[in-house]
This record gives sequence, C-alpha cells and structure tokens, in this order.
Amino acid sequence: VEEHADIIQIGARNMQNYSLLRRAGRSRLPVFLKRGMSAGLEDWLLSAEYVLAEGNPHVILCERGIRSFSTHSRFTLDLGVVPAVQGVSHLPVFVDPSHATGHRDRVGAMARAALAAGADGVMLEVHANPERARSDGTQALLPERLASLVRELRALAAVVDRGVETAR
Amino acid sequence: VEEHADIIQIGARNMQNYSLLRRAGRSRLPVFLKRGMSAGLEDWLLSAEYVLAEGNPHVILCERGIRSFSTHSRFTLDLGVVPAVQGVSHLPVFVDPSHATGHRDRVGAMARAALAAGADGVMLEVHANPERARSDGTQALLPERLASLVRELRALAAVVDRGVETAR
Amino acid sequence: VEEHADIIQIGARNMQNYSLLRRAGRSRLPVFLKRGMSAGLEDWLLSAEYVLAEGNPHVILCERGIRSFSTHSRFTLDLGVVPAVQGVSHLPVFVDPSHATGHRDRVGAMARAALAAGADGVMLEVHANPERARSDGTQALLPERLASLVRELRALAAVVDRGVETAR
Amino acid sequence: VEEHADIIQIGARNMQNYSLLRRAGRSRLPVFLKRGMSAGLEDWLLSAEYVLAEGNPHVILCERGIRSFSTHSRFTLDLGVVPAVQGVSHLPVFVDPSHATGHRDRVGAMARAALAAGADGVMLEVHANPERARSDGTQALLPERLASLVRELRALAAVVDRGVETAR
Repeated sequence: VEEHADIIQIGARNMQNYSLLRRAGRSRLPVFLKRGMSAGLEDWLLSAEYVLAEGNPHVILCERGIRSFSTHSRFTLDLGVVPAVQGVSHLPVFVDPSHATGHRDRVGAMARAALAAGADGVMLEVHANPERARSDGTQALLPERLASLVRELRALAAVVDRGVETAR
Repeated sequence: VEEHADIIQIGARNMQNYSLLRRAGRSRLPVFLKRGMSAGLEDWLLSAEYVLAEGNPHVILCERGIRSFSTHSRFTLDLGVVPAVQGVSHLPVFVDPSHATGHRDRVGAMARAALAAGADGVMLEVHANPERARSDGTQALLPERLASLVRELRALAAVVDRGVETAR
Repeated sequence: VEEHADIIQIGARNMQNYSLLRRAGRSRLPVFLKRGMSAGLEDWLLSAEYVLAEGNPHVILCERGIRSFSTHSRFTLDLGVVPAVQGVSHLPVFVDPSHATGHRDRVGAMARAALAAGADGVMLEVHANPERARSDGTQALLPERLASLVRELRALAAVVDRGVETAR
Repeated sequence: VEEHADIIQIGARNMQNYSLLRRAGRSRLPVFLKRGMSAGLEDWLLSAEYVLAEGNPHVILCERGIRSFSTHSRFTLDLGVVPAVQGVSHLPVFVDPSHATGHRDRVGAMARAALAAGADGVMLEVHANPERARSDGTQALLPERLASLVRELRALAAVVDRGVETAR
C-alpha cells in the first residue's frame, strides 16, 4: 500500500491490530486511524501511540461511530469525543459521518455538526452510481451533493473560524 | 407546577412515567420531553404520543445524551437522532449539551454542533456561582460565557438558515 | 395496591421514580425493585436507599436485563451483577430471565444460570395460553414447562447449596 | 504458532482480522475464536465462516464479555448468547469468566453460571503468583482455587447432564 497510496488508513476493526500499527509507524506516510467501534478515548490514543512510538508523527484520528443500543442509525456518532480529544492530545481529529449514519440523507447534517464541534476535517463517501457500489452504497453521496455540501461547509467554516480544503 | 410555570419539563428518568405523561397531556402548557438515557427513537416518540393523545399538541423533544460504554463525558450525546427524528416526526427537537457532556468547557462545541445538525433549539445550564450550585455545577456556564455563546450561535444560525431566540 | 397485594413491584421504568419509591418505603409490604435498563449498580442501590430510608427494610433487588448493542435477545441479562451486588449489599437479589431473553425457549437456560451464579431467586412468567396473553406472550412458559423447570432448579440448588421455594 | 501450540486462539481484538482468520482456516489445529467486545451474534458467526470456508471445521466459539455502560465488572458477560448460538449453529461455545469479570472472586460464580446456561466449556486463567503476573493478575485464580472450582463444576455438570474434562 505504502508504495502506491498517499495515506494509510487503519480501519475501525484493525484499531488494535498492533503489528499493523507498528508497521505503519515505520512508514513516512500519514496514518489515518479510525476509532474502533467499542474503543474508549484512552484505547484510541494508546493505539495512536503504537504508530508514534515507531517514529511516525503524522497520525490523524477519525471518529466513525460507536456501538450503542440505539438503532436509528448504523452506529452512534460520538461527536462529544472531538472536544474531549482536543483537551488531551495535539493530534488532529476527523469525523466520518458516512459510516456512522449509514444514510445518505443524514450525512450533510452530521458533517456540518462535526465541523461546528471543532473537527479538523470530515471524510465523506461519494459514488457516481451508488446502486452499483460494491459496498456501502446507501451512505454514498452523489457527486453533485458533495459539491453543494462542500459549499455549505465552507460557509460554516468561515463562522467557526476554520478553513476547508478538499482532497481526493 | 402547571399554575406557576411556563412549560412542563419531563426529565429523562420519567420519560416512561405514563401517569405523569397523561396528566401533562391534559395541561395547556407546552411539554418539554427529554429522551430517556436508554430510550430508542421509537420509545421516545411513543412517550410523546401519551401526551399528544390526551389533546396537548405542544410537545418539544429534547436529546440529552444516552448511556454507552464511552466514559469521556457524562453521557454520549446522540446528535444523529436529530435528523432521524426530523425524518419521521413533525415535533421540534432540542438538544441539551450541558447534561450530556457534564463539562462546562465542552458545552459550547456541542451547542454549535446541535444547531449545525439541524436542532430547533438548545437547552443550556447557567449559574452565577457554579461552585455553590446545588447540583450539576461542573456543567453550568457562567453568565458572560452564555452571552458570548449566544452570539456564536446567532452567527452560525445565519449560515444554517435558522433564527435563534433566547428564553429564560 | 398495598391493600390487595402481597408484594409491591417497582418496574424497571420506574426505578428512579423517587416519589413512588418513598411511598413504597412507608408500606409494610416487601418491595421488589427491578433494575432500570440503563442503571449502574450504584444507581440501583441508591434507589433501594429511598425505600430503606423511609423505614421499610424488605427490599428485594431484581436484575432483568440491560440495554446494550446486542440484539440476539430482548435485553442483555447481566448475571455478573449478582456476585457484584453480593459483595457490597446485604439485600437479596433475584433474576428475571423472562423479560431479559424475551424467548420462552431460553428462559430455562438463563434461570439455571442465575441460580448457579448465586441468585436468591428467579421470577418466571407463565401463561396457560401465551398466544392470548395481553403482553409478553413470547416469553411466557407453559405451566407444564414451569413444573419441569422447578424440578431442574431444585436439583441444581442442592448442588450449589441453596434451597428453592416457589411462590405465586 | 502452528508448529508449537495445540490450539490457535484468535483474541477478541482480532475477531475481524480477516487475513488472520483465513490463515487459521488453512491450519489443521482447532481455532478458539473469541467474540469481539462489540460483535453481534451474526458478526461473530460470520468471522467463524472465514475459518470454516478455508476448510478447517474445528472452530470453538468463546464469549468473553461485551462493552456496555455497566462498570461493576471489566466487561458485561453476555451469557444469554450461549442458548442463542446453540439455536442457530452447531459450533461448540465456551465462556471466559476471567476476562469478563476481571475479579478473581467472581470467576467461580460466573463459571458455574456458564455451565448451567449450557456452555460446552469454560476458559479459566490461573497463576501461581498473581501479583507477579505480567498481565491480568487480578483475574487469575490460584491453583488451589482452580482445583476446588473444577470439583464444583463437575458436581454441577452431573446435574445439567454434561461432562467436565480439563485441559492445560
């Protein structure tokens, strides 16, 4: 992966795959570390330490929803963890509203909320033809909705004193 | 309470106190119905039905955090329930970031996030002397912070196309 | 209720209905206090204190399942709370496998497990015609299964050094 | 590991490490698959499928506690999953009361409960000198307690019509 990608993502189910974390820590690529669905704040930061301890300082944390009893969405997006992380760590923290909600129609609301809560960025799933997506089609935005959402986030960012750049 | 108050609040621990709900349904005051800390979306709306069925149409729902394994804050604020409620109900939905976070320093971030997620209002705890509060002092804002937060929320509301009024 | 019943049950949804708890504390009947579905051990014992503080020493605690992400049964029966209660309280602790599982076919297994974990008793739902039950029919035992289960529990009780009496 | 061990254990944090599961599926050793701390019943059985699909039929499931809001023990032991698994799968299911409770003094009660719920076996941690254990010392039984507990489990097994063998 390291030779071809711009960034290494460690998925939620691998947040405590320690050999993988250590290997990513020996890379020079930034590491995007998703929170495990049952990981406490301390568990998550300790997983980041496995990467940092190997000498790679470029870790980005990403909240993507936790398991709770609540079933109205795929996972429960724990936005309160954003200011909690910022109180104890210097690492940037992103939010993934696509996996958390599992519903395309709710992604915009939660992306705006993430930014307003102080998140350093959001990760959004987009697909030109969601019905044909190999997975997670119901949560993928259409390209035109992505464009309008980025405009909304830019307007919001101006108010919460934060810039918005996009990457793909 | 009905003779002296402007609104009846049903606390989270009484969300399924059916005799209380029915009595509030026979009042002409608005009813502020907090979500129980382990209530699913459907449980909550069915509790609202007890009030509505008695003839009182003025029900306001209020998300105040649920119980999860996560311990970085007092409760886990489930902001994803805001668009979920709006997809199935006409009732207004508020958010209480004070009880959810339990930390004064995180109330502003979550109040902004609530508004950005589309909430119709927020409930904020404020105290002129939090150390002397009879309960919940650690989550109470000081009056001057309340004033600055309302200014932030008004600026944010202009962007998310929503007015902000204050009540006490 | 006090004039006609042998025991007062406080249901899970009323575990923190403080005026009800205080009134039960002024009764001479035993109080059967079910654990709220999101109540921690301390919350539960503090609710018992409301009864005890009014002078009624006859409180029986009853675990009936908590809310978790797990959906294979109606609630997650937290049998580990039985030895946890016994380490800090003198109050007897019962278990209700009927509400917890929600499935008639699993009630026997969890009743046996409760007894083996050290519970002082189990509460079992039974109905002569479960299809016609006004609620909770799927979890009700048929009378003949109740009889065979009591025999199983008696045999088990002899091994775990504990008697089994039945009440209706 | 395969060359030196009698059995391959997949820990809870690796329950969804799919490359590891597939490799274990190509082994001839039995695979002891612990339930992830936020895994639903279906997630768990699907992880077992990764092993089975590679041709290794010797999978043993092991419940070891899930994450819930409840803090009286390290994890919430979900014994109700035992009859739930047995209703849909032919695989044997074990229970690990040591990790679930985290307290040596509660291991016996939950081991008995597991057996009474119908578990096919229990996994018990034991240490001759728990204070010096490199990890998890507070949940390790002393050797003499292990011996007495096995006697208790044998007596119990006779009643629930199930044999008890020990392995180390």
